[in-house]
Amino acid sequence: MDPEVHLPSVPLRQRTQTTEEFNRIPTHVFPAHSVRDEDGAVSIEGVKLTDVAERFGTPAFVLNEVDFRGRCRRLAQAFGGGERVHYASKAFISKTACRWVAEEGLSLDVASEGELRVALAADFPTERITVHGNNKSRAFLTLAVQSGVELIVIDSLQEIAELSQVATELGREQDVLVRVTPGVHVDTHEFIATSHEDQKFGFSLASGAARLAALACVGATGLVFRGLHCHVGSQVFDAAGFVLAAERLLTMWAGLLQELPSEDGKRLNILDLGGGYGIAYMPDQQALDVEHVAANLLEKVAEAAYKVGVPRPIVNVEPGRAIAGPSMVTIYRVGTVKDVETSDRTVRRYISVDGGMSDNIRPALYQAEYDVRIANRELKGELVPSRIVGSHCESGDILINDAPVPDDVRSGDLLVIAATGAYCYSMSSRYNMMMRPPVVTLNEGEAQVMIRRETIDDVLALEA
Amino acid sequence: MDPEVHLPSVPLRQRTQTTEEFNRIPTHVFPAHSVRDEDGAVSIEGVKLTDVAERFGTPAFVLNEVDFRGRCRRLAQAFGGGERVHYASKAFISKTACRWVAEEGLSLDVASEGELRVALAADFPTERITVHGNNKSRAFLTLAVQSGVELIVIDSLQEIAELSQVATELGREQDVLVRVTPGVHVDTHEFIATSHEDQKFGFSLASGAARLAALACVGATGLVFRGLHCHVGSQVFDAAGFVLAAERLLTMWAGLLQELPSEDGKRLNILDLGGGYGIAYMPDQQALDVEHVAANLLEKVAEAAYKVGVPRPIVNVEPGRAIAGPSMVTIYRVGTVKDVETSDRTVRRYISVDGGMSDNIRPALYQAEYDVRIANRELKGELVPSRIVGSHCESGDILINDAPVPDDVRSGDLLVIAATGAYCYSMSSRYNMMMRPPVVTLNEGEAQVMIRRETIDDVLALEA
Repeated sequence: MDPEVHLPSVPLRQRTQTTEEFNRIPTHVFPAHSVRDEDGAVSIEGVKLTDVAERFGTPAFVLNEVDFRGRCRRLAQAFGGGERVHYASKAFISKTACRWVAEEGLSLDVASEGELRVALAADFPTERITVHGNNKSRAFLTLAVQSGVELIVIDSLQEIAELSQVATELGREQDVLVRVTPGVHVDTHEFIATSHEDQKFGFSLASGAARLAALACVGATGLVFRGLHCHVGSQVFDAAGFVLAAERLLTMWAGLLQELPSEDGKRLNILDLGGGYGIAYMPDQQALDVEHVAANLLEKVAEAAYKVGVPRPIVNVEPGRAIAGPSMVTIYRVGTVKDVETSDRTVRRYISVDGGMSDNIRPALYQAEYDVRIANRELKGELVPSRIVGSHCESGDILINDAPVPDDVRSGDLLVIAATGAYCYSMSSRYNMMMRPPVVTLNEGEAQVMIRRETIDDVLALEA
Repeated sequence: MDPEVHLPSVPLRQRTQTTEEFNRIPTHVFPAHSVRDEDGAVSIEGVKLTDVAERFGTPAFVLNEVDFRGRCRRLAQAFGGGERVHYASKAFISKTACRWVAEEGLSLDVASEGELRVALAADFPTERITVHGNNKSRAFLTLAVQSGVELIVIDSLQEIAELSQVATELGREQDVLVRVTPGVHVDTHEFIATSHEDQKFGFSLASGAARLAALACVGATGLVFRGLHCHVGSQVFDAAGFVLAAERLLTMWAGLLQELPSEDGKRLNILDLGGGYGIAYMPDQQALDVEHVAANLLEKVAEAAYKVGVPRPIVNVEPGRAIAGPSMVTIYRVGTVKDVETSDRTVRRYISVDGGMSDNIRPALYQAEYDVRIANRELKGELVPSRIVGSHCESGDILINDAPVPDDVRSGDLLVIAATGAYCYSMSSRYNMMMRPPVVTLNEGEAQVMIRRETIDDVLALEA
């Protein structure tokens, strides 16, 4: 086994330099068809954000359906077929989003009974659903097998025994993958890196645990061992990590083929390389080029398979952020604008908005960075060092730690943060009894509510 | 102005050393009346946690009403009257909890329109409500003034103008405090330290901003300037920070009295020293001794007032965690138990439970530490290095990073994490569509649901 390989991390961010640049919408960070109109207001998909704010209130998530579907199509084309591209629903899930994914011909990843239930409520074709999770309950496994999901990704020996029992009781043969930690790190923030071996997911390749798990699956009644799965990290900007992981898995695969009865070996044909495709949160970032990565990955997998002497596998991928992330923005109303002078006489401007860590925990949780613009007008002032903060009763409630914002921003302005489609709504809370915002979708010049705003009555109804 | 003062941080944690120690319930970390019964199962307030799990399912928050009320009473007595002790509802709020706080004679802090609405729904006496927030909306200010809240804590010049307008329009005189950052750090985790001047809250004392804000309040129609507020940090274990902050505020206070017309000066009589009283999350911690701190603080405030020549003020305090935190535990069912061997041949046990970062984000967000026990039986095995993880599809979904747990723990065991009453339920999410657990209360041997478990139907109902 090769030693663990560390790949380069995300480069340092550059900030807006001029007021003109601040007013310019970075189209590679915003959803498709985002423009600043002649009257100075920002539109997406032909809908003015000021109109969305007026009609649906703030804060609100605004999701461009055209952008979301476009990313689905682009990935499907790049990977030679939608069924190989599994939308990772943990990034953002709703019945409507599941329907879009189904209509675009993609497959779906779910990682909990709740996510599976939403997919079922949306009538998502179950033969295109893959099931994840480090701790799947008996109820979850039973529902998954009963529903006829395509694949269940095995994460522990305990699960093999349990799933075998469930499948046998239900009289089913369930296709499974084995999740492997191949020892490839992609060096992003520690909390979202997932390919270390010292983690809750998967079986270590190096220790031999992965091989034993694969053999256990082959030997288990009711299970059909179909292939291997790995996930090298999140917000990855370099295809090398995927390629290296694939090479390692295929070497293991070749070894397994020598051990397995040929009938079992023939059914082994899926290599799932997970998700983690980086998107541009900031103007100086460029999203991973999916066409380039797909072509590169498919070619390298074919080469590696040839080299180790195994048939070329089907390659599954699991983008979540790369589909939902850039398709959404969050709009907020600016409230308090306050200049804070500290003991050392430096001044920082605090711009408060009417949401915060309840609708976007990622800055506090992962030190995630976001781009900020004003959506109702062009500003004209000098750039001043500003911090965009929420309304929560907590000093760590920071959305953007350090952003240059023109000094004529004022209470009442409409502030927009881009690329909030992934892991914002899905991780949202009701901290400080701030209600979850709605998700408003845009298509063909029309805005409509996908998920309504929660109200205090929703909260109070939970209590007798 | 003195230079900024840094105070000592929380000491390093010590872990359980023996299996016997693991089986022993640390009563200073758990709610009152927590014991391991002769059959090996843990009871709180005469109710077996195994019975709670069976009846209400897992995960579940379990709240000892007797403990919660007891802490209210103890704080009220220590500070010479419940009305001076404001329960900080952001830690944990529900209608029932508000009623308990009211019945115990305490006052209440709210930091959002939503928190105020819950308090109003519980018929909390509004003349005992203090209102916080860095970005109070017009609607929130209006509701607060209309409801007749006791105090609004002013956080920006903009708010002075806005509140003055609101109060004038409603024909009211609203009592206010001014929130001051006195430059006293209490050295806890950066994200929860709140007395740095470079933060969204308050007016800096050192820069003179606090003095100007106080004068602006005095000059504003409809506002009555009643005093000063500060908050030095969270999880504070040393009273010195409070005392130092109080001394600085009283020095400012003395200066103000010389500037103010004597009528206005006479109405200035409230010093709010905030919350932040540390609790024991781990067995080697000791909660801040509230009787000692209260006596010390009241005495030092009297001394400092005498020294600077101002009348002795009323001292308000705002404990949240110190009341709700230790009164609650979370029970989980153990699922997957997996030994992970890494490339360097070390082995770590991963114990998965049926909740995770959706019901307790604090370990991921603040690197918060918690104590873990098994509640259904005594274990007998050797201690092994274990990591308690949740069921979310994220490798950072860790509840306890490193806990020695006897090696005979197994799937189906009932795991309990103590001191989860503050900032767990209140910050909970539906990440991965894992539903929010119920809050079950215990009193006189009875368990009942305070807040019911959320269901997938609650989620699906938000979408048309």
